[in-house]
Amino acid sequence: MAIVVQKYGGTSVGTLEKIKNVARRVGKVKDEGHDVVVVLSAMAGETDRLIDMAHDLVPEPDPREMDMLVSTGEQVSVSLFCLAAQGLGYKARSLLGYQAGIQTSRLHTKARIKDIDATRLRQELAQGQIVAVAGFQGLDRFGDITTLGRGGSDTTAVALAAALGAEVCEIYTDVPGVFTTDPGVCPEARKMDYISYDEMLEMASLGAKVLDIRSVALAKQFQVPIHVRSTFEDTEGTMVVNEEKIAEKLMVSGVAYNKNEARITVRGLPDQPGVAAKLFTPVAEAGIVVDMIIQNTSADGLTDMTFTVPKVDFTQAMNLVTELATGLGAADVLGQTDVAKVSVIGVGMHTHAGVATRMFNALAQENINIDLISTSEIKVSCLINEKYTELAVRTLHKAFELDRDAPPREETL
Amino acid sequence: MAIVVQKYGGTSVGTLEKIKNVARRVGKVKDEGHDVVVVLSAMAGETDRLIDMAHDLVPEPDPREMDMLVSTGEQVSVSLFCLAAQGLGYKARSLLGYQAGIQTSRLHTKARIKDIDATRLRQELAQGQIVAVAGFQGLDRFGDITTLGRGGSDTTAVALAAALGAEVCEIYTDVPGVFTTDPGVCPEARKMDYISYDEMLEMASLGAKVLDIRSVALAKQFQVPIHVRSTFEDTEGTMVVNEEKIAEKLMVSGVAYNKNEARITVRGLPDQPGVAAKLFTPVAEAGIVVDMIIQNTSADGLTDMTFTVPKVDFTQAMNLVTELATGLGAADVLGQTDVAKVSVIGVGMHTHAGVATRMFNALAQENINIDLISTSEIKVSCLINEKYTELAVRTLHKAFELDRDAPPREETL
Repeated sequence: MAIVVQKYGGTSVGTLEKIKNVARRVGKVKDEGHDVVVVLSAMAGETDRLIDMAHDLVPEPDPREMDMLVSTGEQVSVSLFCLAAQGLGYKARSLLGYQAGIQTSRLHTKARIKDIDATRLRQELAQGQIVAVAGFQGLDRFGDITTLGRGGSDTTAVALAAALGAEVCEIYTDVPGVFTTDPGVCPEARKMDYISYDEMLEMASLGAKVLDIRSVALAKQFQVPIHVRSTFEDTEGTMVVNEEKIAEKLMVSGVAYNKNEARITVRGLPDQPGVAAKLFTPVAEAGIVVDMIIQNTSADGLTDMTFTVPKVDFTQAMNLVTELATGLGAADVLGQTDVAKVSVIGVGMHTHAGVATRMFNALAQENINIDLISTSEIKVSCLINEKYTELAVRTLHKAFELDRDAPPREETL
Repeated sequence: MAIVVQKYGGTSVGTLEKIKNVARRVGKVKDEGHDVVVVLSAMAGETDRLIDMAHDLVPEPDPREMDMLVSTGEQVSVSLFCLAAQGLGYKARSLLGYQAGIQTSRLHTKARIKDIDATRLRQELAQGQIVAVAGFQGLDRFGDITTLGRGGSDTTAVALAAALGAEVCEIYTDVPGVFTTDPGVCPEARKMDYISYDEMLEMASLGAKVLDIRSVALAKQFQVPIHVRSTFEDTEGTMVVNEEKIAEKLMVSGVAYNKNEARITVRGLPDQPGVAAKLFTPVAEAGIVVDMIIQNTSADGLTDMTFTVPKVDFTQAMNLVTELATGLGAADVLGQTDVAKVSVIGVGMHTHAGVATRMFNALAQENINIDLISTSEIKVSCLINEKYTELAVRTLHKAFELDRDAPPREETL
């Protein structure tokens, strides 16, 4: 008899009929003798409906009141779920964030979980209750409701699983698991049986949307196994676990892409010590996250500096950088928004320099030019022209044989 | 600089535009230098929408989960109100029942307020905030959300006004105040400037719907003046205050009616000591509230017993009473549902026996037969055939000259 934490997203509880289905599914696990904690999101569309109302009233709504408003969505879900479960004959009880002991920081609309007091949760489980916890919400030390930001229910589920020492945290979603790449772009994409926390972190940060990145980091920290699976099918999904638990490490396990970055190039910058700091410190202070950076030094004491910023910050960044670059004596500043980042990820690659080479060759064969490169222990990313994104993803997926049942492992390269 | 508590019902906050209007109205009072606490109901229709969803899931929903569900309605209202008030430039903060320190009994869906800890409320007011409190809800000692039943927001408002020592508790509604009778039945009905707590209690219990009866009892207990007025007009409404505060006591201040009772008559009951107890104890134990009772003793040792019960309990009561009456040797049991109770109410009547006489004469002149009579210190009620209800109301309204600017006072009869 283990504790199982299950999280269901908004589409999984989007209608009363779907809520009943979730109750049936949860009931089955309870029937098998497990203690079940269910974390629910708001019914699909509800959070947006509430946010729209707020924006109709005031252009920049107060974050505290926004949390008060949107946290009702999850409250409705958990109470309806419990009624559905009771209708099927189960004992079920809903708990809000504060009742589940979820204490957070005070940063409204993007609070962080600081601690969980699972006393009441354990009491309810001991009484044989299925416990439904409102996802996405907690209480700060002033007694005010906070929310954890978009995707926050994943974090709630993982944090509760950690606090309860649950056997597994199952994240139910509308896809069957984590894929080697976006199946919408590459029909040969395959569902993975296993992926390591580090790979999943890279996948999430590089654009795969199946899991919220904070929940993966938390799962890694507390060694909580995550099972990503479909609400609408009964098949096994993808286990997100520690690298050591994966017997056969793939050199490359996935291909990700991200169209949300833009490129800025400063040309003819005098190549003096500290010039990079003078350029990037004010950008960071403006809250703009610079991702890839490359510097080319030319012979005549001038240098070119190229980097990427989020597309939403592009205009602000261009204005700021142009002002700074002019002050530093640069020739000109170029901006480009039709760029994309494609990446290959795999824990097995860190012993194999050959991964980058194979990646560059594959892109070259399709005449895809690489603008910028960045690497980490377990990923290689290339910035390319946006129009080649899908072609690049399919090319790399094939080049690393991810479409095959048994892609190359670290010992085979 | 006084503390003013204002309560707005569901129709007053039924749309975003209406919520903005409420924010403007509240802001005006704040501008005048007062501390304002606003108690809000759920947006019109929202509570019913939530209840309908629950009933779609399970025929008899668990009261605890119902409270969890429906309490979201008021939470949405208060956060939207605060956003609207902030949009107008005011400082505003929403508090849920537990944040406003409202502790209740554990009886879900009809909890009673046991205590209010106004510490946080006072802190927020001291910071210049307009404080919006979610009506209708509180927290029990186990940390679970409770609700106070339909009309509970009135009770929340009066309880907060008592706890804060507010100058007045203003109840905003969709009518301009308390009327001498239902204007829909009697076009000559006049808005009262003042009514005493006791009269208002009788009016409410006899069918006038403008104020929840528990809130009136609470206001009387803590001597909180209530001002019933319209959200949509700027005129003065009706003050509900202590009898001593009303300079000119009307003999009859209002006429009420109630079509929600049914009549049961047991005929030929052996007239023995304890027979009434044998009949009514099991009825009370079944949770059926018996209202008017009359007993006629005949010469041959038999008696007839007539009484009223709520129409919703009529079938159950008939079955129960028939079984009991047969056991007690009664001849037969008759039931009638097309009955109505009309009442005249006034604190000035308790020194004047003439009120009942004038009432009976007025009804007799219209050939309206009286089935049952019950009286209290400040009211006389008659049970009549339902089809005469409107005629009786208009007749009594005229007989006690309530259509005049200066109806008869106690010294004039």
